[in-house]
Amino acid sequence: MAKGKVCLAYSGGLDTSCILRWLLDEGYEVVCFLANVGQEEDWNAVEKKALKIGAKKMVIEDLQKEFVEDLCFRAVQCNAQYEGRYLLGTSLARPVIARSLMRVAQREGCDCVSHGATGKGNDQIRFELAFYAIQPSIKIIAPWRESKFFNRFQGRNDLLDYAAETGLPVTSTKAKPWSIDANLAHCSYEAGILEDPNQEPPNDMWTMTDDPMKAPNEPTNITISFEKGIPTKLVTPQKTFTDSVELFKELNRIGKVHGIGRIDIVENRFIGLKSRGCYDSPAMTILRLAHLDLEGLVLDAQVRSLRDQFVTHNWSTFLYNGMYFSPERAFVENSLVFSQKSVNGEVRLSCYKGAAYVLGRISSTEKLYSEEEASMDSLENFSPEETTGFIKIQSIRLKKYSEEWAERQ
Amino acid sequence: MAKGKVCLAYSGGLDTSCILRWLLDEGYEVVCFLANVGQEEDWNAVEKKALKIGAKKMVIEDLQKEFVEDLCFRAVQCNAQYEGRYLLGTSLARPVIARSLMRVAQREGCDCVSHGATGKGNDQIRFELAFYAIQPSIKIIAPWRESKFFNRFQGRNDLLDYAAETGLPVTSTKAKPWSIDANLAHCSYEAGILEDPNQEPPNDMWTMTDDPMKAPNEPTNITISFEKGIPTKLVTPQKTFTDSVELFKELNRIGKVHGIGRIDIVENRFIGLKSRGCYDSPAMTILRLAHLDLEGLVLDAQVRSLRDQFVTHNWSTFLYNGMYFSPERAFVENSLVFSQKSVNGEVRLSCYKGAAYVLGRISSTEKLYSEEEASMDSLENFSPEETTGFIKIQSIRLKKYSEEWAERQ
Amino acid sequence: MAKGKVCLAYSGGLDTSCILRWLLDEGYEVVCFLANVGQEEDWNAVEKKALKIGAKKMVIEDLQKEFVEDLCFRAVQCNAQYEGRYLLGTSLARPVIARSLMRVAQREGCDCVSHGATGKGNDQIRFELAFYAIQPSIKIIAPWRESKFFNRFQGRNDLLDYAAETGLPVTSTKAKPWSIDANLAHCSYEAGILEDPNQEPPNDMWTMTDDPMKAPNEPTNITISFEKGIPTKLVTPQKTFTDSVELFKELNRIGKVHGIGRIDIVENRFIGLKSRGCYDSPAMTILRLAHLDLEGLVLDAQVRSLRDQFVTHNWSTFLYNGMYFSPERAFVENSLVFSQKSVNGEVRLSCYKGAAYVLGRISSTEKLYSEEEASMDSLENFSPEETTGFIKIQSIRLKKYSEEWAERQ
Amino acid sequence: MAKGKVCLAYSGGLDTSCILRWLLDEGYEVVCFLANVGQEEDWNAVEKKALKIGAKKMVIEDLQKEFVEDLCFRAVQCNAQYEGRYLLGTSLARPVIARSLMRVAQREGCDCVSHGATGKGNDQIRFELAFYAIQPSIKIIAPWRESKFFNRFQGRNDLLDYAAETGLPVTSTKAKPWSIDANLAHCSYEAGILEDPNQEPPNDMWTMTDDPMKAPNEPTNITISFEKGIPTKLVTPQKTFTDSVELFKELNRIGKVHGIGRIDIVENRFIGLKSRGCYDSPAMTILRLAHLDLEGLVLDAQVRSLRDQFVTHNWSTFLYNGMYFSPERAFVENSLVFSQKSVNGEVRLSCYKGAAYVLGRISSTEKLYSEEEASMDSLENFSPEETTGFIKIQSIRLKKYSEEWAERQ
Repeated sequence: MAKGKVCLAYSGGLDTSCILRWLLDEGYEVVCFLANVGQEEDWNAVEKKALKIGAKKMVIEDLQKEFVEDLCFRAVQCNAQYEGRYLLGTSLARPVIARSLMRVAQREGCDCVSHGATGKGNDQIRFELAFYAIQPSIKIIAPWRESKFFNRFQGRNDLLDYAAETGLPVTSTKAKPWSIDANLAHCSYEAGILEDPNQEPPNDMWTMTDDPMKAPNEPTNITISFEKGIPTKLVTPQKTFTDSVELFKELNRIGKVHGIGRIDIVENRFIGLKSRGCYDSPAMTILRLAHLDLEGLVLDAQVRSLRDQFVTHNWSTFLYNGMYFSPERAFVENSLVFSQKSVNGEVRLSCYKGAAYVLGRISSTEKLYSEEEASMDSLENFSPEETTGFIKIQSIRLKKYSEEWAERQ
Repeated sequence: MAKGKVCLAYSGGLDTSCILRWLLDEGYEVVCFLANVGQEEDWNAVEKKALKIGAKKMVIEDLQKEFVEDLCFRAVQCNAQYEGRYLLGTSLARPVIARSLMRVAQREGCDCVSHGATGKGNDQIRFELAFYAIQPSIKIIAPWRESKFFNRFQGRNDLLDYAAETGLPVTSTKAKPWSIDANLAHCSYEAGILEDPNQEPPNDMWTMTDDPMKAPNEPTNITISFEKGIPTKLVTPQKTFTDSVELFKELNRIGKVHGIGRIDIVENRFIGLKSRGCYDSPAMTILRLAHLDLEGLVLDAQVRSLRDQFVTHNWSTFLYNGMYFSPERAFVENSLVFSQKSVNGEVRLSCYKGAAYVLGRISSTEKLYSEEEASMDSLENFSPEETTGFIKIQSIRLKKYSEEWAERQ
Repeated sequence: MAKGKVCLAYSGGLDTSCILRWLLDEGYEVVCFLANVGQEEDWNAVEKKALKIGAKKMVIEDLQKEFVEDLCFRAVQCNAQYEGRYLLGTSLARPVIARSLMRVAQREGCDCVSHGATGKGNDQIRFELAFYAIQPSIKIIAPWRESKFFNRFQGRNDLLDYAAETGLPVTSTKAKPWSIDANLAHCSYEAGILEDPNQEPPNDMWTMTDDPMKAPNEPTNITISFEKGIPTKLVTPQKTFTDSVELFKELNRIGKVHGIGRIDIVENRFIGLKSRGCYDSPAMTILRLAHLDLEGLVLDAQVRSLRDQFVTHNWSTFLYNGMYFSPERAFVENSLVFSQKSVNGEVRLSCYKGAAYVLGRISSTEKLYSEEEASMDSLENFSPEETTGFIKIQSIRLKKYSEEWAERQ
Repeated sequence: MAKGKVCLAYSGGLDTSCILRWLLDEGYEVVCFLANVGQEEDWNAVEKKALKIGAKKMVIEDLQKEFVEDLCFRAVQCNAQYEGRYLLGTSLARPVIARSLMRVAQREGCDCVSHGATGKGNDQIRFELAFYAIQPSIKIIAPWRESKFFNRFQGRNDLLDYAAETGLPVTSTKAKPWSIDANLAHCSYEAGILEDPNQEPPNDMWTMTDDPMKAPNEPTNITISFEKGIPTKLVTPQKTFTDSVELFKELNRIGKVHGIGRIDIVENRFIGLKSRGCYDSPAMTILRLAHLDLEGLVLDAQVRSLRDQFVTHNWSTFLYNGMYFSPERAFVENSLVFSQKSVNGEVRLSCYKGAAYVLGRISSTEKLYSEEEASMDSLENFSPEETTGFIKIQSIRLKKYSEEWAERQ
């Protein structure tokens, strides 16, 4: 009789193949799970491999729509960004994957879940907090944090040896000198040679963006429409897209061609270590810019300021730290959605050699911007003398302060 | 005997020339003041013009060093940005200009100051709050808010007629269909045809950046060094710069060639109106990116998060709203300076067709980033099991929340 | 034909009686409006007086329920407090009064509104921002800011003379040496002898609280129930109250007897001046304490922390500054309501000589507090070793920081 | 040869006596450490007991001055409060104790430190984060989190048995049905019967406050002076105190007599559990009120608002969570100190039956409050018409918002 039934997040790679084998060796029954969040994958090959190694079942779930609509578009509404730069691609995918994995675990009657995330990274935290929040009683097996496992497998060679011993089918391709994680929102590159923060990433590393230096000499102009802060339409020179996933993929395609959305940063992981990461996020970069721009036109100044300080900063941090299934994320997201009621309109952009540029924006429903009122020349409904009073009253406090401190010097 | 003695912020343009004439007509004695904050100007011609119209004196002050060191570099330390995009070029110049104008007013024995800012904009507020804060007793004459003036001069033609009548020397060049304000930090473009937020700015509008589409096909790679968050050295392929103003101007030059730093936004003015502005800020754009990047390497995560929410957001808003000479600006700037003690190191960047890219960063003094510790492979000084406890404790609250709400559904 | 039709906020006192007379002199038709927000008043006498002076109509509206439910209870949900102490009694009443006055103005076809608030206070701002927000086209007559009026009436004696001249019925009672404003939430005392912040308020000043030194030697114990943060039931030794207004008034009665809710502060007015105010708020003080206490039992820690920093602070400031009818107030109030879903339960308190004390709290629906889990002895579902990992991971950043700075000393 | 040398935080109670014995059994050499932070203690008896059990040395350090000046007065400057109510007595003492213990550990050549804090509480975290921050290489022995220890000692009886077996001198007094921790700042009461949050604490529980119901019928009036936010003088009807510790103790004495400073709350521990705590903090309660009041008179409105949202909230949370020796605490404390430059003046208070009341406040150096300017009657230097402009400009945004949303309903 099996020790227990495990739902394993399985990618088909060397690590999780060894983990699968090891769990079987340890006496568990294993159901493998793989989420399709838009990455390139030979799905059949993965399934075959899992079953060959001994998985009882391989479940592959297409989460692309859920991922784009529930997470990526929410991030766009939020102008989400971690530490002023990172667009959170991996952080956004984790909640969707974890939720789906738990659905599978529950359906298949698993009492344990397992994954191949390492012991120093953010992903282990994101996955496990999600698992516990969804089902507090779940048992989690994190082999890279179990001494029995990590003492035995101290490097890639140990895994290769184990694979050879146990007859695991291993792709002979040489590992890249960095780690990759891809989904619709981005591809991330870290570890290996990238651990030197002064080492420029090699140009052939990037997978979701072409080299801006080799991008076309002609820009591509597009128009993105938003309803309540959510992208609802993309018009390109060729075609119009309204399906969320298709719209998102087309932006990835255009962004790739023009080399838009590369970043290279040193960031602060939840556990208190700094790490270096490179990310290319074409669609997210373009959507964030367009949304930010539209908000200038349609959002009240004070609501925007509060949203920036309170919602944008915190939502981004919560996602980064794996706190999606938390009361605090629900709390700030409720505010976010409320703030977006008026974010309706469209933005025209130009994509060219590494960047997107806003060409113009318009809203047929929102009226906070008034060309006439903004005009320096127009004085309708506005008496310039009023500003005198405004300034005088604003100066009361400053004058007092000035007098107070002048005396002391 | 004169009604009073006025120190007028005089640019040599049509508006302030008419104001100068009008103040004299009203019986004031006038000292003209012009700040050199790095704009292109025929300084002699302005002086001659002022004296010809009847100014008692024309004072021109070179404030470039003060502007770069006291304001622009502080903004860089702060990663300052208004509403997520605007780098505050005009807002940064105003305090320096106002402070210098007041020094001149006091030296010249003026009891009044005057300026040509319009009645709906931010600049009137920035100037006047500064004047009042520096000398609470000062009298301010803001002609564009005095009915006697603005009723008489209802448009450009009225000013031209007045100039003709009173023999003002007027340049015959046709006015541009937008307003311009330039200093070392940026050039701003607004009003006129730009008041339609969906009207793309004409390509010949931009003065401090060349068209990214016509930028060189070869990037320029540079290295910027920071001490306590302040740029102290720029190394270009040709030369090394350590003088603050020269360093800043060289970045403007490089940024201009590569078309770096254009933005086009709708923003929220202090008085509650929205307006559309276009800005090109080459040096500030490059410096902000470099500083932001270095902070990733050397700043503690929690200090950074607090600084972002509290200092960056507020300092930017205070500057935008003309609150430089305020206790709240002093309060947050004190925090800013404290946070920058460890921001020491250098950043390598590449400038290419409209954008700057980080190539690498290094610090010889700061050690928060450790290549070895960040490594996923290294387990020295770190037991992976510890993370298990961390996650378990973090999950306590999430589990409770989950149980609480699960029951309700 | 009248110059216009004015809806005047009329109290029956000397100031607004003179304003009524003056508006009539100026050629306006006047409808008087008085809100019943729970203050003591001889309503018939006020009506008679208004009509005698010449008002076309006197409208008195009972706003007690609206005031308690829409504003006071919202403040309780929010633990609202301005500058750490003031419970906002006047600020809470203004929006309800202004809204009702505008309803009357619109019903009666008035194109103007008027009030007797002075030119340095907060109330003029609160009233007028509300009027403008509700009907942007409304014309406002603020006599105390019109030179024609304030130059003529430079003190109380001028008003008394005018009253005598124009035959206004004036109560002969001598004015108190301070100003009073009362409603269900509190009574405020300011100006006059209170302007010296070191002058202790006379004991006979307070109207809604008896002297704590003369309060009964026996406490009164009560129980207050909340649903979603709203007080829904009050149980006293004598009786149970569930009607919002009755419950509120009974708490005022109990609080008065025991002398609960006096504060005496120097506060910062919106216009930048400091002023001294004394306030007694029996019901609000007791309700705030009870609500704050219940939140300890039932609110998630992180939601609470975010709510405290962003919602409580800002909602209080918005109300104080007259920003009730603003997008920012709506924005934070939406968050507030969301946060209160779990604030269900009851709190037992004791009222005694100037203060209320919590005796205990319980919730039959919320489970975040678990006696068993909190117990230091119980180790069920909790392995103490986990905390070791938690602490170790939390210390990573602190150790780095410590090493970094140790070297520098 | 000993396994290692341990510096143990030793109180003389049953728990730490057993831990001392157990450490010796385990083969460690032990130096005992006890901090005098103002608690009542028979210091000689503790020393004798430690030595008798087998400690190599007993070190007792008087930290009262350090505790009051470095921590308690900083908390007063900050108006520190956790979750709106708790004055942080225990949290304030921990950093001082930990720092002193580490000094002793280093002096005595210990490579380990140990304490008797339980595995679910905050104190283990506060102690250990401090230890690690001060000396990252230190080894920590937390017996209540070691299975070898906690499995053996599952309750008080196991400890008593062990004491009997090993000849530990045990006081025969019956344990109280709750835990106590006392220092100058407060006494805390938790666990045991208090774990039922609806259980009213017995009146004989409180040690630092007399029952308000039995307090004198006559108030005691006092005056407290502050310099830069730090209490520097206390004048009572009997005497004047300027020494920090004496001043603090006298306030504790007065507060005790009048029953001031009891609170009873459910709070959120760092590890995510809720717990119930009762605290009496006489001096801190009086000082916080006095300081808060003085700030109303002398602190700029905007600085205060920023300080409240960012410094007060965060400093309190950092202290509660054991983050004293952290970059973020240093960062916000730097802001705090800057904000207090103008907090100079004195506050008169009355202490009476459970509460303190402010009678008046004055500052001879600060001028932000001006009686004349605050006066509703005075119009010097202030034109009421200016407020009209202020209100008009403030209303621009509200009118736009109103029009925008009116159309949608």
